[in-house]
Amino acid sequence: MQPITVYWRPNVPNPAKVIITLEELGIPYIGKFVEHADLKQPAFEAINTNGRVPAIEDPNTGITLWESGAIVNYLIENYDTEHKISYITAPEKYHTLQWQHFQCTGQGPYWGQLAWFQLFHHEPLESAKKRYVDEAIRIVKVLDKALEGRDWLVGDKITYADLAFVSWGSSLPLFLSDREEWNIEDHLNFKRWNDSILGRASVKKALSLAKEEDVKG
Amino acid sequence: MQPITVYWRPNVPNPAKVIITLEELGIPYIGKFVEHADLKQPAFEAINTNGRVPAIEDPNTGITLWESGAIVNYLIENYDTEHKISYITAPEKYHTLQWQHFQCTGQGPYWGQLAWFQLFHHEPLESAKKRYVDEAIRIVKVLDKALEGRDWLVGDKITYADLAFVSWGSSLPLFLSDREEWNIEDHLNFKRWNDSILGRASVKKALSLAKEEDVKG
Repeated sequence: MQPITVYWRPNVPNPAKVIITLEELGIPYIGKFVEHADLKQPAFEAINTNGRVPAIEDPNTGITLWESGAIVNYLIENYDTEHKISYITAPEKYHTLQWQHFQCTGQGPYWGQLAWFQLFHHEPLESAKKRYVDEAIRIVKVLDKALEGRDWLVGDKITYADLAFVSWGSSLPLFLSDREEWNIEDHLNFKRWNDSILGRASVKKALSLAKEEDVKG
Repeated sequence: MQPITVYWRPNVPNPAKVIITLEELGIPYIGKFVEHADLKQPAFEAINTNGRVPAIEDPNTGITLWESGAIVNYLIENYDTEHKISYITAPEKYHTLQWQHFQCTGQGPYWGQLAWFQLFHHEPLESAKKRYVDEAIRIVKVLDKALEGRDWLVGDKITYADLAFVSWGSSLPLFLSDREEWNIEDHLNFKRWNDSILGRASVKKALSLAKEEDVKG
């Protein structure tokens, strides 16, 4: 098998989702670092017209693909043939998709807005911060409840859905560090699950790729 | 085939995505209206622990499922056996997934924040409005460019990916009506495509279900 090319940047959550999946499945890859200034330039837009990382090129199939969730689905369908981190049985297969979509549409965009208004927006907007603090904690509560008495979101093994949450999950304490609404000890199922995923070798590797250079796996 | 139960509300975009898919595929369904006050109550949270519509129950398979994107994927995989609005060939199958994810993670959440700060937030926050006006128009530009010389996002037929964009697409002029940055005539590929999807019988039906009652299809 030829290595898959992954266009990536460190310190943003979505490329890490793809690298974690590649690591878990033992798929060879070459991670090509993309400068921020190059994302919206013609050369990279020819790969991803949306001008974002991650994107992949798979020389084994000839496909070019972007959107981290779709890339993960592609990798699972083509390369998780032993169902190490996925299911082929119903309803587990569809419940895994369901939690993946909750990560992509609920956690990712809303925790992203939380990070923006807490850390980066050029003026302090307390009511906007409050909106996203509350929504981020609501999402933690949904996960905490779903994980009551369970190790993983679906069935009895870790899946790509659990793994998808961790790159934002690793940053949440930073985003909420000044907020009295937040106490991780209020959400012990979430904490146990998040810590467990953070301890995996694939995750440690993906989240430690902080340098602005090409990487390999 | 027994009808699929769809938990829904009018005037929110995501249930419409599911109803459009059911209509396109000719799948019988019963739409059960959920009062806003009931979304976060135990009876409905037993169906969707995230307390949101849509959710489905399919008596033909016994599955209960939420997240509109995952529901659409489930319906396609189980009931679009003639590939009316999907592909089984690569790369088309994965490019359809890619554009679906762009809708779920890019258009939906960001146009949702635009609607929130333009129409509903309790204080006017111009810099937050500006953030989402710019991002909404950026997303239109990505679609406009992708649709240059093409009728549909993937291949030569409409797919569930094109259809997924229309329920937010129908509301965009309302969200941007007071903004000088917005002129639909600057985005003629997007306009042609959006108008074409709005003209479909499935879409007309789903977007006209404005009453707070149970529906059938």
